[in-house]
Amino acid sequence: MLSNDIIQAHNEKLQAEHQFKLSYLTQLLDRKGIDIQTIIDKVKDFQVAIPSWALGTGGTRFGRFPNGGEPRNLEEKIEDVGLINQLNRSSNSISLHIPWDIPSDAAAIKQLLKANDLTIDSVNSNTFQDQKDQAYSYKFGSLSHTKSEVRNLAIEHNIQCVEYGKMLDSKVLTVWLADGSNFPGQSHLRNAYQRTNDSLASIYKAMPEDWTMLIEYKPYEPHFYSMVIPDWGTSYSLCQSVGKNAQVLVDLGHHLPNTNIEQIVGRLMHFGRLGGFHFNGSMYGDDDLTTGSIKPYQFFLIFNELVDGMQDASVKNPPLAWMIDASHNTKDPIEDLLQSVNAILTTYAKALLVDRIALADAQENNDVLRAEELLRDCFVTDVRALVAEASHQAGGALDPIATFRGAKVRSGLVDKRGFSVATGL
Amino acid sequence: MLSNDIIQAHNEKLQAEHQFKLSYLTQLLDRKGIDIQTIIDKVKDFQVAIPSWALGTGGTRFGRFPNGGEPRNLEEKIEDVGLINQLNRSSNSISLHIPWDIPSDAAAIKQLLKANDLTIDSVNSNTFQDQKDQAYSYKFGSLSHTKSEVRNLAIEHNIQCVEYGKMLDSKVLTVWLADGSNFPGQSHLRNAYQRTNDSLASIYKAMPEDWTMLIEYKPYEPHFYSMVIPDWGTSYSLCQSVGKNAQVLVDLGHHLPNTNIEQIVGRLMHFGRLGGFHFNGSMYGDDDLTTGSIKPYQFFLIFNELVDGMQDASVKNPPLAWMIDASHNTKDPIEDLLQSVNAILTTYAKALLVDRIALADAQENNDVLRAEELLRDCFVTDVRALVAEASHQAGGALDPIATFRGAKVRSGLVDKRGFSVATGL
Amino acid sequence: MLSNDIIQAHNEKLQAEHQFKLSYLTQLLDRKGIDIQTIIDKVKDFQVAIPSWALGTGGTRFGRFPNGGEPRNLEEKIEDVGLINQLNRSSNSISLHIPWDIPSDAAAIKQLLKANDLTIDSVNSNTFQDQKDQAYSYKFGSLSHTKSEVRNLAIEHNIQCVEYGKMLDSKVLTVWLADGSNFPGQSHLRNAYQRTNDSLASIYKAMPEDWTMLIEYKPYEPHFYSMVIPDWGTSYSLCQSVGKNAQVLVDLGHHLPNTNIEQIVGRLMHFGRLGGFHFNGSMYGDDDLTTGSIKPYQFFLIFNELVDGMQDASVKNPPLAWMIDASHNTKDPIEDLLQSVNAILTTYAKALLVDRIALADAQENNDVLRAEELLRDCFVTDVRALVAEASHQAGGALDPIATFRGAKVRSGLVDKRGFSVATGL
Amino acid sequence: MLSNDIIQAHNEKLQAEHQFKLSYLTQLLDRKGIDIQTIIDKVKDFQVAIPSWALGTGGTRFGRFPNGGEPRNLEEKIEDVGLINQLNRSSNSISLHIPWDIPSDAAAIKQLLKANDLTIDSVNSNTFQDQKDQAYSYKFGSLSHTKSEVRNLAIEHNIQCVEYGKMLDSKVLTVWLADGSNFPGQSHLRNAYQRTNDSLASIYKAMPEDWTMLIEYKPYEPHFYSMVIPDWGTSYSLCQSVGKNAQVLVDLGHHLPNTNIEQIVGRLMHFGRLGGFHFNGSMYGDDDLTTGSIKPYQFFLIFNELVDGMQDASVKNPPLAWMIDASHNTKDPIEDLLQSVNAILTTYAKALLVDRIALADAQENNDVLRAEELLRDCFVTDVRALVAEASHQAGGALDPIATFRGAKVRSGLVDKRGFSVATGL
Repeated sequence: MLSNDIIQAHNEKLQAEHQFKLSYLTQLLDRKGIDIQTIIDKVKDFQVAIPSWALGTGGTRFGRFPNGGEPRNLEEKIEDVGLINQLNRSSNSISLHIPWDIPSDAAAIKQLLKANDLTIDSVNSNTFQDQKDQAYSYKFGSLSHTKSEVRNLAIEHNIQCVEYGKMLDSKVLTVWLADGSNFPGQSHLRNAYQRTNDSLASIYKAMPEDWTMLIEYKPYEPHFYSMVIPDWGTSYSLCQSVGKNAQVLVDLGHHLPNTNIEQIVGRLMHFGRLGGFHFNGSMYGDDDLTTGSIKPYQFFLIFNELVDGMQDASVKNPPLAWMIDASHNTKDPIEDLLQSVNAILTTYAKALLVDRIALADAQENNDVLRAEELLRDCFVTDVRALVAEASHQAGGALDPIATFRGAKVRSGLVDKRGFSVATGL
Repeated sequence: MLSNDIIQAHNEKLQAEHQFKLSYLTQLLDRKGIDIQTIIDKVKDFQVAIPSWALGTGGTRFGRFPNGGEPRNLEEKIEDVGLINQLNRSSNSISLHIPWDIPSDAAAIKQLLKANDLTIDSVNSNTFQDQKDQAYSYKFGSLSHTKSEVRNLAIEHNIQCVEYGKMLDSKVLTVWLADGSNFPGQSHLRNAYQRTNDSLASIYKAMPEDWTMLIEYKPYEPHFYSMVIPDWGTSYSLCQSVGKNAQVLVDLGHHLPNTNIEQIVGRLMHFGRLGGFHFNGSMYGDDDLTTGSIKPYQFFLIFNELVDGMQDASVKNPPLAWMIDASHNTKDPIEDLLQSVNAILTTYAKALLVDRIALADAQENNDVLRAEELLRDCFVTDVRALVAEASHQAGGALDPIATFRGAKVRSGLVDKRGFSVATGL
Repeated sequence: MLSNDIIQAHNEKLQAEHQFKLSYLTQLLDRKGIDIQTIIDKVKDFQVAIPSWALGTGGTRFGRFPNGGEPRNLEEKIEDVGLINQLNRSSNSISLHIPWDIPSDAAAIKQLLKANDLTIDSVNSNTFQDQKDQAYSYKFGSLSHTKSEVRNLAIEHNIQCVEYGKMLDSKVLTVWLADGSNFPGQSHLRNAYQRTNDSLASIYKAMPEDWTMLIEYKPYEPHFYSMVIPDWGTSYSLCQSVGKNAQVLVDLGHHLPNTNIEQIVGRLMHFGRLGGFHFNGSMYGDDDLTTGSIKPYQFFLIFNELVDGMQDASVKNPPLAWMIDASHNTKDPIEDLLQSVNAILTTYAKALLVDRIALADAQENNDVLRAEELLRDCFVTDVRALVAEASHQAGGALDPIATFRGAKVRSGLVDKRGFSVATGL
Repeated sequence: MLSNDIIQAHNEKLQAEHQFKLSYLTQLLDRKGIDIQTIIDKVKDFQVAIPSWALGTGGTRFGRFPNGGEPRNLEEKIEDVGLINQLNRSSNSISLHIPWDIPSDAAAIKQLLKANDLTIDSVNSNTFQDQKDQAYSYKFGSLSHTKSEVRNLAIEHNIQCVEYGKMLDSKVLTVWLADGSNFPGQSHLRNAYQRTNDSLASIYKAMPEDWTMLIEYKPYEPHFYSMVIPDWGTSYSLCQSVGKNAQVLVDLGHHLPNTNIEQIVGRLMHFGRLGGFHFNGSMYGDDDLTTGSIKPYQFFLIFNELVDGMQDASVKNPPLAWMIDASHNTKDPIEDLLQSVNAILTTYAKALLVDRIALADAQENNDVLRAEELLRDCFVTDVRALVAEASHQAGGALDPIATFRGAKVRSGLVDKRGFSVATGL
């Protein structure tokens, strides 16, 4: 954690410039009949979970270029998320990955979380890698494996994840099933689906009633011919089969080229089955770049769909789990996460500006250009001062990244932790 | 119709070469424990419907280059399909498109169908174009339109299609909904879905109980931002909502780049919701090329999934509707259709050769290479003589296209029908 | 043309709101050391040509829904572009399409152009359609056709286009070659390339020395297996072979999924071979939507590359031809074009704001985040008031679309011209 | 190496079945006027290099599941390739990867190569990973890096590769440049190109005159916004600039979705700049699957283009370097490589069957269907017996994989080498 004086000092330096921009934005929104503080309050309430596995340097199969100071254990990961949250006041929870983050002393971890103003968001199982001395290999699948021994091992692992989650007051199990096949014929596609369905049902039954199971989908990688859960339709049908607390998790990078993701988001909310998000950015595939870094307008359209659904009383979708899932191959991981959260808040704020009554009217009358411009106007409006103000009002930094850089946090971490490589992807 | 003597004469000329190949294939399959006549019989039973709208020259928005002799009315379309079926004995039905194929005299049409050994396969509605003097325009949608007047017009049109179908003993209504939007904001995505759902439910209620509604999906074109029914997941959820006789129709060209179509096919059969196929070939989008002309191995893998599902007693999927839906921009339409049906039969035959017991064993034991080779072996086996023999045994031509060319059918049609352009796409 | 009073009156109504925004933007830029008038002047100088074929309602192969008032001849097309230019003062030229826009009386057309403050930008040949009574068909190609008669016809047509262009003081011939094949084997790929090369060389030789030939590329449509000029590499190699005044034309919609277009733009400028642009927007393919409507950030990155190249003295690229090439299927064509030009100017203005010295420094030192944020800051800055001011200073409307709507121009055009359909796509 | 008795014994067991198939194929081809032995001889001459880095288990960024017996050093890699070549007689060379395969004793390695009937094909540099104690990091690029120290390090490394190659009588340097950027703005696109150009020129100058430099391209991964050499156009322009012995290397997996690769191959041969191939298979991206496993027809069309170019005296392309570059995540690496070589030979054989005179005639006359069927006929013909016979005549196994499995080679290797993990990807 930084001394709050540092944040304070930084904010003071930026204050004049900030007020210049905020004051204009306040008037601009006022002329549209929007009270800026109402939007600021909503932005302050919005919290995005940070994944424990994204605090180290990421890489590709071709290599990894670590830049030092990476957290060496769960405690240091909590420390890093605590710092992020201290700076932006919008990241008050952490997603755990088992077995990387097994808490050796749950009470101590809860203490540490509390000291950092954090909670545990979700627990993520890992059946895409073999752990040392594992009884059976996941080489040919886990929950969908042809052999019941392997499936049972994977089921038990997921149930174990729920147990760890219970210790730390989480209520969400996230299942990303990496099972699939590399060649035609390798897998019996229908049977693999049914085995997966049965395995998920077993895990679901073992979950407490107030837990949610998030089922993620992905069209390819790590398998390159078929994935057992490749698309939202498959996730959705599994949720229907498994139970009412099973929900689809949308990872922005897990779609085929040219997919209209915002429409999928709307569909799932309409069905009451959108459970949450893995935010990131991508140009080609599961590139795991900074959120909003490649297609910011599509990202706005996704948030427009989310806000529209959340504001519509007829939509019976449960509250969503907001999480980042990105990889930081060239940027400093903490800076990258601060940048991503900022992009999320900025985009959320823009979606909150949409005049939904005017939009509904333009849509009803098929005034294509006017409907489009109502959205574009909000996207083009520069709301950065609003997001900075939200952070400021909540006790965070006006410019979290500049504060982080100014305080030379990374070099301090390198001094302390050295160049060991964090668990993660 | 051709004189049967012509077909006979042609077959005689090819007989020696045919026997040489057939005799080898018979032995080859026999060595694998496969009785060739069993496969031939299945191929003979397989019938693919010809769409009335594909008997003329196709085109793109940039233009069309007609080559003459196109059918000028429903009677001539039936004539063309009758000829195709006479040549290959595998195309004994025709798909109608309303309003292009409204039968002015149903009794006479039934007579003509009978004379040509044909039946009506499905009836296809058209709400993607405005007809002369139409009360409301479909410019901004039909079944999903914001205005109830327009939705009702489209609902009535579909019900009218069912009425025409009843006159001609069809039992299938195919709905390809071209509704969508070109720009973000233009359409309220959730509401458009719900309106579509309600419209389809109204049509469904008006259908006789023994009718099937096929709901097609397509990711883009004619709209380029969103389509109301873009993917199998949407079609599937609409079918679930509408009723048990609603089924998903898969058009091979209606997928985003790199989609694993065979897995979708397996999924839908597993759910008992695969209603039928629109066969064609594509490289980039909805290219509507000859079936099997671009990715013949993927086409085989799709048939492998189909045959696997059809042979599995635990799969409760109804019988499928097999239809071609292609466009013939540069080839002679009749030749192109003969080529497509041949590709379908050949691929079906190959899928019938798969040793499913050995494959299941290799899959169960994760012998990836062996499982793959069991499929590849069937794909690589040259079964053309088997398909020719099936046609021959059924009274058709050994080589339908060569017979068609040899008899100079097209120039006869040009003489008779001239250069008018058929209704169609 | 509108009465200037109407524009004046409209501007007055918007003046207060405009000044509020402009005054803030002026200060904001001033704090960054940017003089807003310098940017405004550059925006005023930027002129985008309007294609004659985009003034009517566009469509797809599935249909077209005209909305009336479309221009019936070249004179009325010039009138429409004159109106656009009167409103935005940034569209002072028109691209002609031959044979649709053959001037029957060149002197009169030149007179009309002058009266409308317009010039002719480029002349576009058409060898993707057959014209009535054409000696040979382009069904199987034009400049790449196997038969010299057909090639010569296409060569002559292009030379004829140059002749028409000379009459109207154009100096640019744009060649979009739609030649290609639908099936493997149909075309000999190497020979088709060489024939195209030779045909283009013949046309080039017939051009005056001060003319430029723009060679466009497109990966698919209207052919769906191969296009003779599918990518920038092919256009570029043809330009190298044909002569120094041959340049590559980039149409934003003519790329495979996920293409990094901005890098192609940079490459071609580096080689001194970027001749011009066809602006439009797309999500799936050659969707021909409003410019900037789908991927505005990518569009900004393209302009960033352009401005960077234009400001770099070491880049020896000739001045570029800026043209729109879009289709208006659901929006009013004139409104759509006004919206597109506005998006182009806005994006150009943002690219002009980039601090290239700071950016070069961040790049040199591999400060990834800072380099990225330097660009994002400009993209996120709302410069709409600046573009409005540029139009205003040049005598145009502050809000061209609102002025067009307010003056009820379209209904006047419908009254005058009725519902005939314009030539075009 | 296996005892030749084992191969012999295996061949004898398969002989009867083989003769049955070969005899039919001989007659079948004879009826088409093709002498089977001529084709067999060409297939025997065709040699595909095996990459040293593909003899171990491959993986993704998510993990790797080794299956044991992987080679622990260059000597054991040579042993494995020797075995592959002993079995198929078509893999008589090995591609080296520096620094993984630095020969500590060049004379001994040459001896070992000779004993295994092998040569060194090409030398591959690695600037996409940092080596222990490297003076500068390649994190932000190598040949394109902003800093001359880093560029010089990468240039020196490439020159060093040439030195190692000279020691082992290689004459080819393959450069896959992984440089690129993850975010807009990170890299100055034009400057990065020029620096790459200059670095390659320096390496080229240091190469002996009889060496070839192969320049590979790839659109994305390991960077996800831009790659410095993303497409054939860039590789080609670099080759033009660098020198006459620089050639483009095509890796089948390095293309955007839906790319017509065969046309690129034809283009490059037409320009005399196609240097070689990295064979593999892919469905989504650089999936590095078994060659021919996903799109065998496209693979045939590529070979059709190659054979057409190689048989055309007017094409001035140098002889090509044929290499595999795949990853074996689930299959046994040696089996996978045997399968890939077999797919390559089979496809080559099919392309040799094409009747180019008849094809040219159909193309000339735009008989689309006939031209297509001339190709399809060769693709559909089952030539596996021909390829088996070629192996047999050359002293190899009729069925290399079955022989490998029958002799239980892998379990022997596991016993000997254990479960250490090979260097590679």
